Amino acid sequence: MSNENETLSVAFSQVSGNFRGQEMKKVTCTAPVNIAVIKYWGKQNEELILPINSSLSVTLHQDQLKTTTSAAASREFTEDRIWLNGKEENISHPRLQSCLREIRRLARKRRNEEGDENVSRILNDKVHICSVNNFPTAAGLASSAAGYACLVYTLAKLYGVEGELSEIARQGSGSACRSMYGGFVQWVMGERDDGKDSLAKQVEPESHWPELRVLILVATAEKKHVGSTAGMQTSVETSPLLKLRADLVVPERMEAMIESIRKKDFKAFGELTMKDSNQFHATCLDTYPPIFYLNSVSQRVISVVHQYNTYYGQTKVAYSFDAGPNAVIFMLEPTVNEFVEVVKHCFPPESNGDTYLKGLPVGSAVLSEGLQSIVASDPNPGGVRYIIYTKPGPGPTLSQDLTLDLLDADGLPLQCA
Amino acid sequence: MSNENETLSVAFSQVSGNFRGQEMKKVTCTAPVNIAVIKYWGKQNEELILPINSSLSVTLHQDQLKTTTSAAASREFTEDRIWLNGKEENISHPRLQSCLREIRRLARKRRNEEGDENVSRILNDKVHICSVNNFPTAAGLASSAAGYACLVYTLAKLYGVEGELSEIARQGSGSACRSMYGGFVQWVMGERDDGKDSLAKQVEPESHWPELRVLILVATAEKKHVGSTAGMQTSVETSPLLKLRADLVVPERMEAMIESIRKKDFKAFGELTMKDSNQFHATCLDTYPPIFYLNSVSQRVISVVHQYNTYYGQTKVAYSFDAGPNAVIFMLEPTVNEFVEVVKHCFPPESNGDTYLKGLPVGSAVLSEGLQSIVASDPNPGGVRYIIYTKPGPGPTLSQDLTLDLLDADGLPLQCA
Repeated sequence: MSNENETLSVAFSQVSGNFRGQEMKKVTCTAPVNIAVIKYWGKQNEELILPINSSLSVTLHQDQLKTTTSAAASREFTEDRIWLNGKEENISHPRLQSCLREIRRLARKRRNEEGDENVSRILNDKVHICSVNNFPTAAGLASSAAGYACLVYTLAKLYGVEGELSEIARQGSGSACRSMYGGFVQWVMGERDDGKDSLAKQVEPESHWPELRVLILVATAEKKHVGSTAGMQTSVETSPLLKLRADLVVPERMEAMIESIRKKDFKAFGELTMKDSNQFHATCLDTYPPIFYLNSVSQRVISVVHQYNTYYGQTKVAYSFDAGPNAVIFMLEPTVNEFVEVVKHCFPPESNGDTYLKGLPVGSAVLSEGLQSIVASDPNPGGVRYIIYTKPGPGPTLSQDLTLDLLDADGLPLQCA
Repeated sequence: MSNENETLSVAFSQVSGNFRGQEMKKVTCTAPVNIAVIKYWGKQNEELILPINSSLSVTLHQDQLKTTTSAAASREFTEDRIWLNGKEENISHPRLQSCLREIRRLARKRRNEEGDENVSRILNDKVHICSVNNFPTAAGLASSAAGYACLVYTLAKLYGVEGELSEIARQGSGSACRSMYGGFVQWVMGERDDGKDSLAKQVEPESHWPELRVLILVATAEKKHVGSTAGMQTSVETSPLLKLRADLVVPERMEAMIESIRKKDFKAFGELTMKDSNQFHATCLDTYPPIFYLNSVSQRVISVVHQYNTYYGQTKVAYSFDAGPNAVIFMLEPTVNEFVEVVKHCFPPESNGDTYLKGLPVGSAVLSEGLQSIVASDPNPGGVRYIIYTKPGPGPTLSQDLTLDLLDADGLPLQCA
């Protein structure tokens, strides 16, 4: 480094120190996880992330599962940087770049239309982004949806951008577009080649169906699984059934699912949720080479759910599985205590009895003899590592809580792993 | 019993003893097992057993797997009776009755057309039927195909009936029609409501592809499975993908499979065999409630087959699974020794090292380091109970070997379990 540069660097640092309050704009937001009940699997456009079928999901409550993201812009920053779960990642990743580029494009558009001075200044700055999940990535819960939704929402707040953001989140991770809203959300696949109409739309807010509850059974994975991006690409290329499902089955299922939610018809909602989960995994098996996401624990959960419903002669609980062995179980509030007891009987905690149940509080329940006989056979200790009890929740929010801030006064992560 | 009846009984017994040679006609036949490479799953007519799609199978050699059936007719018999694997069964079973009725109908037709005295006499007699498999039913190998094929073929020989018999075997058990021929056999679904054109046809005899070999890996079942009759009925009623497969996927697969066999193109044959097995199991998973026939052993076999093929950069082995966890593996003769060694590494024999390999003799092989690294991880002792090594074989035959006879001079089973 030459003397000249060194002097300049010191001078710049002093200036920035003096004006730090003005120089750095910083916001912190949170965003939720969502669970698809009509599954998304397969893109017709890899770059724009345009899906081969519409999908529909339930946004889960952020009290249990959320991503928190802080983003700061400053003229002192020499480059865009990002830290994910305490580790700096390469921000040149195409999907991160897509989100940054699109938000900045909207910001420029607003500056040009409204002549906003603040936006104009910030567009010349680099950004620092820091993001953490409040749940372990190892849990196998799809974190990219919450992650990209939070990134896009946070950047939008930073740049003062408003309006339709799900199209941008979609370009980070397809299912992220659905995490841009709370409650029950459809991702309408759209028809345009440029993807401008491939957007998320709220079907009903979370307040619409206040009795609905969700259990996540985090299963012990037996082996590593095919990632969803690679997996769905192989499925699109090789599974004849996936294309037939997308073209001929999903359209009417979308209508039926929306109707079941509007009517709060748990039987219809639950049965279609299970059927669509099964059909998604069927298309994985129809992929060549076949992809297996359901393991023996998942199969046992499926069996227990059907036995439980058969015992009551009605659909009281319904499972859904994404690209991994974890089960997401939907039910109405009065069923929770008993079904948790059923799960505990089938998959007894090993050494973690005190941390087996996470999330909302669960009451006690005594199983009838009939239910005990269902769960008595062949217990699988440790097959379920823990249960997260949650419910539908709201979309992304701007945090007013300074304690959630992930970047320090210099725009660097407060905690590093 | 009155004195009068007792006297009559003794007298009758004496008469029959005097004329035994003339009175009882008896034949013994054998029939093979077949393995579908384009799968049959689902009926459009339950009574006539008309399938929702055509299918195609390889007939396995009877030296390893066969059903033997003896049938006798005598005026001394007071009722039709049947013994299966040493145990008397109820002959009023509708499917047994279908076969008996249809064969007798053909016999009457022949008598009426040709006036055959022998046929005329035997049509007034009752029959005794005794049937055994040379493989354990517990092995989970579909025994009904060989069983009904053998029943129909044996009855036809007994009654002197000739001509198209696969239509009758089909009414016993759908896939039995394909066991009426050796080699490579298609079951053309047909178009007629009465099923007269739903027949098996030989594509090529077993001599056409002399290098083709088959390993059956008999897996340890973890639990009882849904039977194929009930399973396919539920699938027809609930799986949208099954109907789409039958209508839109199978027709072109039938053509491609026939072409691969005619050309002895193992790559095309093997890949389509694996894809169609996977698609069949996908439709089981799309059934509601879902049906799982593949267990963790099956999944491991699938994974090892793909790893083996990837290692060689070509399709050298191909799996197929029916309604259970057993794997049927196709390959050409030069691959057998090595692949058996691979299986032994992945699924070491537990206490049955000497009976682990059944059927044709297998030579030794030393695995390369590359192959060893594939099979080294996570061996599953006992996951495969034993291996049967066999090859394509001929159709049903009339036995000249008196030692195979299963009925004694009184028309009763020689051995009872």
